[in-house]
Amino acid sequence: MNEIKIFCPATIANLSCGFDVLGLCLDNVGDEMIIKKSTTKGIRITKIVGADLPLETEQNVAGVAALALIEAVEAKLGPITIGFDIEIYKNIKAGSGIGSSAASAAGAVFGINALLESPFEIKDLVQFAMQGEKLACGNAHADNVAPALLGGFTLVRSYTPLDIIKIESPSELYATVVHPQIELKTSDARSVLKQNVSLKSAIMQWGNVGGLIAGLYTQDYDLIGRSLHDEIVEPIRSVLIPGFDLIKQTALENGALGSGISGSGPSIFALSKGAATAQKIAKAMSAVYEEMNLPYEIHVSKVNDQGMKII
Amino acid sequence: MNEIKIFCPATIANLSCGFDVLGLCLDNVGDEMIIKKSTTKGIRITKIVGADLPLETEQNVAGVAALALIEAVEAKLGPITIGFDIEIYKNIKAGSGIGSSAASAAGAVFGINALLESPFEIKDLVQFAMQGEKLACGNAHADNVAPALLGGFTLVRSYTPLDIIKIESPSELYATVVHPQIELKTSDARSVLKQNVSLKSAIMQWGNVGGLIAGLYTQDYDLIGRSLHDEIVEPIRSVLIPGFDLIKQTALENGALGSGISGSGPSIFALSKGAATAQKIAKAMSAVYEEMNLPYEIHVSKVNDQGMKII
Repeated sequence: MNEIKIFCPATIANLSCGFDVLGLCLDNVGDEMIIKKSTTKGIRITKIVGADLPLETEQNVAGVAALALIEAVEAKLGPITIGFDIEIYKNIKAGSGIGSSAASAAGAVFGINALLESPFEIKDLVQFAMQGEKLACGNAHADNVAPALLGGFTLVRSYTPLDIIKIESPSELYATVVHPQIELKTSDARSVLKQNVSLKSAIMQWGNVGGLIAGLYTQDYDLIGRSLHDEIVEPIRSVLIPGFDLIKQTALENGALGSGISGSGPSIFALSKGAATAQKIAKAMSAVYEEMNLPYEIHVSKVNDQGMKII
Repeated sequence: MNEIKIFCPATIANLSCGFDVLGLCLDNVGDEMIIKKSTTKGIRITKIVGADLPLETEQNVAGVAALALIEAVEAKLGPITIGFDIEIYKNIKAGSGIGSSAASAAGAVFGINALLESPFEIKDLVQFAMQGEKLACGNAHADNVAPALLGGFTLVRSYTPLDIIKIESPSELYATVVHPQIELKTSDARSVLKQNVSLKSAIMQWGNVGGLIAGLYTQDYDLIGRSLHDEIVEPIRSVLIPGFDLIKQTALENGALGSGISGSGPSIFALSKGAATAQKIAKAMSAVYEEMNLPYEIHVSKVNDQGMKII
């Protein structure tokens, strides 16, 4: 195999109660990448379509992630004499809160690993993709790259050492994601957070994390819904997102199990049981932003249990 | 049925990462109660063996819990013309940190509910048993009464509304519990806690709660072990328990999956896979306290998936 074309899925991190630890993978929202083996050593970003992003390897999240993978492969197997040319076709807008940088970083390592006949297991690729996240927002977080690579839901139990648990999605779980067309940088969304939280709120939060994980394993949609609360981050961050309260309320009134900020925003997600409810929520959310004259994009997707796909 | 004899199991609350939300039920450590129907209306504590506890109904955790149940039964079904006489045979020492008050409170409501032909489901009895906990320590917590009633592991996802999730125990999971013979009041153990925690520690804690729940559902003993960390409470409370660090280290060196403070202490628990390892840990823990000339009790028990038992 000299060339690979892959679908790089968008992801929803945090999922209300699971700030910095939980994420899920979307199915029909994402970028595409074409990666080609080259006789010239090194990593080159040869083409970016759909976004104004740097082509310099060291300045590009896909480039940085690929370099981290190559370094590890060489440490494991010895020098690699070939190189890789990467084309990125972006559909996920930067700063949307659905894992735009993660899709590129994870896609690069997934594709190159496949072209090298899988020296690493998919789970082990998370650490390399995280280097792309570090470039994108200063923080090597895994809650988008892990679900992008592994699919379904992922829990980052620990960073030191890195310990990622994949949880299969209940079969009828759908996400609706609305992206109001304002840009909210992850770094800005992080800067509003407080360094300390009340023990009382923290206890409620980990009760809900436990409930959400239990709901996923038992396919208990009601329990998933009851657990989708964020005591800590949403009350602070949601004021940065126009219409947040109304969008969330609208989602819940239209049958959502729960709703919250996707990643660091500004996208807002709702989870629901079944495609019909997810579509109904999308229609109702759209009406809210139309009434506000705010441009938006909207996505409806099953949770994608596979993650990255070769296409 | 005019009389019931029940086994009221001891419980381990908190379980390292799950402060105030997680608990498990022990199998061969617990009290016994005999509850008899009486033609005289009301709740009477007629006998307490093995502990110096108040016989006055309103001053006794079993009495208070029973009164809460009776009030709810009357609200549901109309006046009850009979009463109940309760005998309590304590084996679980008060202030040991393995749910002594919870066993009595939960036993009373379980037994009376059974004698009344189960007007409430077992899960619904938790709220009444919590009234006993409120009398015992000023805080109507559920993390001991829930596992005592339901067995296995329980997660208190939320208190308002009360939302308890029972999780079956992996089949080979054993607990070793050592009780150094010092008294540590729950109220004192709570007073040392800080009202605020760092967001960073809280994130690590809910990552571990998620990991522990995932480990229980997938019977992944290693994951259970990796998740048994407490970033927040153990570092503060453990200084109140003589020999804590050495006992914990000894447990881990002898094969424990994890170890921590049982409830608010002073008991220390270790979880392990299989009875042999649990016994080995018990022997090693005992040697530590013998070396320190500190009196102790030690228990080895399978996790009890049933909870309260009629005997």
